[in-house]
Amino acid sequence: MHPSVLAPQLTEVKQLIDTRLAEYCTVRIAGAAHMHPQYAQLWRSIETLITAGGKRFRPYMLVISYSAYADADADIEPILPAALAQELIHQAMLVHDDIIDRDTMRYGIQNVAGQYNSIYAADIETAEERAHMSLSSALLAGDVLLSDAYHFLSKADVSVDRLSQATSILSNGVFEVVGGELLDTENSFLQQTHIPAETIARYKTASYSFISPVTMGALLAGAPEQDIALLKQFSEYVGVGYQLRDDLLGVYGDEDKTGKSASSDITEGKRTYLIEQFDMLASDDQKQAFYDIFHHSNADEQALLTARELLEASGAKARVEETIELLATNAEEVLAQCSAPEAAKTIFRELVTQCLHRSV
Amino acid sequence: MHPSVLAPQLTEVKQLIDTRLAEYCTVRIAGAAHMHPQYAQLWRSIETLITAGGKRFRPYMLVISYSAYADADADIEPILPAALAQELIHQAMLVHDDIIDRDTMRYGIQNVAGQYNSIYAADIETAEERAHMSLSSALLAGDVLLSDAYHFLSKADVSVDRLSQATSILSNGVFEVVGGELLDTENSFLQQTHIPAETIARYKTASYSFISPVTMGALLAGAPEQDIALLKQFSEYVGVGYQLRDDLLGVYGDEDKTGKSASSDITEGKRTYLIEQFDMLASDDQKQAFYDIFHHSNADEQALLTARELLEASGAKARVEETIELLATNAEEVLAQCSAPEAAKTIFRELVTQCLHRSV
Repeated sequence: MHPSVLAPQLTEVKQLIDTRLAEYCTVRIAGAAHMHPQYAQLWRSIETLITAGGKRFRPYMLVISYSAYADADADIEPILPAALAQELIHQAMLVHDDIIDRDTMRYGIQNVAGQYNSIYAADIETAEERAHMSLSSALLAGDVLLSDAYHFLSKADVSVDRLSQATSILSNGVFEVVGGELLDTENSFLQQTHIPAETIARYKTASYSFISPVTMGALLAGAPEQDIALLKQFSEYVGVGYQLRDDLLGVYGDEDKTGKSASSDITEGKRTYLIEQFDMLASDDQKQAFYDIFHHSNADEQALLTARELLEASGAKARVEETIELLATNAEEVLAQCSAPEAAKTIFRELVTQCLHRSV
Repeated sequence: MHPSVLAPQLTEVKQLIDTRLAEYCTVRIAGAAHMHPQYAQLWRSIETLITAGGKRFRPYMLVISYSAYADADADIEPILPAALAQELIHQAMLVHDDIIDRDTMRYGIQNVAGQYNSIYAADIETAEERAHMSLSSALLAGDVLLSDAYHFLSKADVSVDRLSQATSILSNGVFEVVGGELLDTENSFLQQTHIPAETIARYKTASYSFISPVTMGALLAGAPEQDIALLKQFSEYVGVGYQLRDDLLGVYGDEDKTGKSASSDITEGKRTYLIEQFDMLASDDQKQAFYDIFHHSNADEQALLTARELLEASGAKARVEETIELLATNAEEVLAQCSAPEAAKTIFRELVTQCLHRSV
């Protein structure tokens, strides 16, 4: 095995995946049109959504992990279907996540439910009924994307044993993310229970978005079992760290760069790891001042500034940064034990930086 | 290839599948409990639902189709995971179908959403919010069942080519049933479009419930391609016929035997194939009398009797019976061209009777 140093860049993988996704949508629209024009409509809505955005970061992680263990002259073509499967699982979960959150926008455009709310406007008068029917269409869209993820995976050109193991990785990711979603949702309304943010980060973020693509890529390249186990740990650290960084950016991020609000986590009262640290570290006075602002939708810019200062003054912000550093160190220690060549490890190390030390 | 005459009976298959389903739930509950007790709760709700009912007819069809082409001494053990996959896809679609229909009961008990409506009672006050959160839990439950169907399929002990083809059959079934569901749902409220009941029967009923298990069983046993194509036609006829029989039983069935209402299709105004035939055949007077009753939730027993008589007098009922007979004849003609042995064909012929000439 002569491992490749020439792992593709994110932009290259994105282009490959985007091309495949466009072909996939074209085929599905034609197949749906053969059944009925109204089903083709659903597929056009899906096409509009999944071509509107997405960094294709999961396919990228699968590809670099594959490249780390594949022969230097190995083509990525045979495993691209697996990379596409990662993207489709992600898109399916986003569509269903938006149903749970009653969001109608994604990637700056209307998501499937949002588009259907307009499509059904002429036929369904009441807003509530229209919302239900739009969500039903989105529910069906997510189902077929989830199903097609497995369809693609089965087209990866690998042995039956690897295909079966890769399918287990994918389904284990779904099993975990479904649990993570449930816990995260229940956290927002259950009175007696608080589920730690780290638990949710592990299952909602790290599982299918990091562990699944990284371990599947290595598996498909025939990496030693021990390395796959190490990479599972590695991607768990990176995935949890990614989420903690996300929580910090949700309060301290530059909105122009991140494209996400730096106030909604506070006004909506999102109980992130940062808030958990605050609860442990803050004085009573700090808590009183903070909770006068937190979870109040009408908090103004001055109040938000005060809230950010309190989170910093309490030591909570620094504590989150420390945890992220610890996760980065853990990830690198695990990586050091892998048998992958140094050049490949460099790429994995860059992944740690990209996920844990990012400002966007 | 020495084909087996000893195809298992439905009761035997049901027992095998029920045992596997129970084991599956036990494993998943333990895995979920390892994550968090609240996730184990979701799995207990799933277990309660999927062990409460279900004839396991789809696994049965897969097994008899496999037996028709397998060696006489072939064990069904290697393909049981595929049979289980058929059942899980079905359960997933039921869970999501109930969300679309806002049903909270299934198999005479509360479905996942119904159970969660009780579980969340203490924490969510408003009925609307509780309904949304309960449906969200059911949405997640359906997702993981759908995903696990593919997980099981990948454990079938077959070659990589057959596994890949079987996965295509399964995902094509999902692609079609999602379209069928969408069309059926939209049929209930779109003003300008009426989608023929036969189209919906083809995609909502025949696809994943008949075509998928029958063709997959034959494929896994190594049936000739031509036979698989013939069995696809065969199961399409049987599946559509099954639905038309279902529509008749929904109006003329013995409620004690069928366990389903013989009035709700009329009171709810369900535009079945039977009603389509009535629209074509009935006189203006018959139509006027019928539509005074149809789609009126307060229709009494006398009115329902009149409606049934009008459907019969118009010739609509007889027309549906004729169509069913035609489908049965078509199915048997296609079957005659198959290379399966006579003994196996006898079992397929019994399937036609079971589905098209049933009274329950």
